[in-house]
Amino acid sequence: MLRLYNDPDSGNSYKVNLLLTQLGIDFERIDVDLLGGETRTERFRARNPLGQVPFIEMEDGRVLAESNAILWFLAQDSTFLPQDRWTRAQVLQWMNFEQYRIEPNIGSLRFWITMLGIGDQRATEIERRREAGNLALTILDRHLARRSFAAGEFYTIADIALYGYSHLAEEAGYRLDQYSAVTAWFDRIRAQPRHVPITAEVGRVIPWPESRAS
Amino acid sequence: MLRLYNDPDSGNSYKVNLLLTQLGIDFERIDVDLLGGETRTERFRARNPLGQVPFIEMEDGRVLAESNAILWFLAQDSTFLPQDRWTRAQVLQWMNFEQYRIEPNIGSLRFWITMLGIGDQRATEIERRREAGNLALTILDRHLARRSFAAGEFYTIADIALYGYSHLAEEAGYRLDQYSAVTAWFDRIRAQPRHVPITAEVGRVIPWPESRAS
Repeated sequence: MLRLYNDPDSGNSYKVNLLLTQLGIDFERIDVDLLGGETRTERFRARNPLGQVPFIEMEDGRVLAESNAILWFLAQDSTFLPQDRWTRAQVLQWMNFEQYRIEPNIGSLRFWITMLGIGDQRATEIERRREAGNLALTILDRHLARRSFAAGEFYTIADIALYGYSHLAEEAGYRLDQYSAVTAWFDRIRAQPRHVPITAEVGRVIPWPESRAS
Repeated sequence: MLRLYNDPDSGNSYKVNLLLTQLGIDFERIDVDLLGGETRTERFRARNPLGQVPFIEMEDGRVLAESNAILWFLAQDSTFLPQDRWTRAQVLQWMNFEQYRIEPNIGSLRFWITMLGIGDQRATEIERRREAGNLALTILDRHLARRSFAAGEFYTIADIALYGYSHLAEEAGYRLDQYSAVTAWFDRIRAQPRHVPITAEVGRVIPWPESRAS
């Protein structure tokens, strides 16, 4: 059975939980204590040398990290990743946009402000990142004003990736009421079959497992 | 003919110049004045709503942004992007690692210190990012100590993506002598057929062109 090494608070982990649920794939989930430093332990790095969650572990012990790479790998035979080459290029464009312009400006701010409580110490940087985040949301809003989903008229892993942190923007101190196309798209995402929120407990929780032969 | 909207100083733009050259694809190049604010003009945003370089413009006017999405799209029928699914997943993992852990910690520091000259104003943030950048280089070094290229024994777009900024790390104040597997990999990359350095002038430079019908 597929194993997901997971942080329940992370938007990046949530993306993978959401896709696995929507694909109907059973999986084992190992919740990792990120704030407690578990990703920096020898045990963790022996399993995943990149030292980060989420990552997946296959039946044969191979591991794959980086949320968007995991989404791509899992979705490649499904309707969540259309075969058309231009559509796939658009999906990748928006997934990269998410990792570079949404996650660092929304996900990191949420982590510093809400999880670590160090917003005051990083006020100048947060201000600059919030400006960049609002620009990214503006670009996304204009894009979604003219189409139903990121890559066109159908729901793809680009939407899952973009939704992962953008729907948590208020926890990072953003106001979303000015982004009406984005919030309407949130509603379309939440209306997809088998949608689950970030707070849902999906997969079967297991303790840190023995290593699989690889 | 394919058009590349380009910043000659950008590692992200360099990736696309390098791949196009290695693929033997002729292209027109439009150099954009990033420091002068050209990506924020109406003219620019009408062409590329994401407001960034590099991006490519096809014969029919369609545009694609995000360097790693462009690499994927251009390379998909070539040996630079193998067909094997697990290899492709690894390529994507390392391209995401590059965008999230190399570019912000090396590319941004190089931009602030060398291009904008505002290193002093951002000393605290630079220190934190340099620590994260050194960790990323350590992970990459350990990975490359056991294989010739990022995804195994052959050169792929993951190497092009990772090389884009990592080989410029000294311009961002990093010391590379402690990363011997990385610097040996630099040599292997530079030995690839049709390799060109970031300073090479490739493509045919043209002024800002009329819009193509899309």
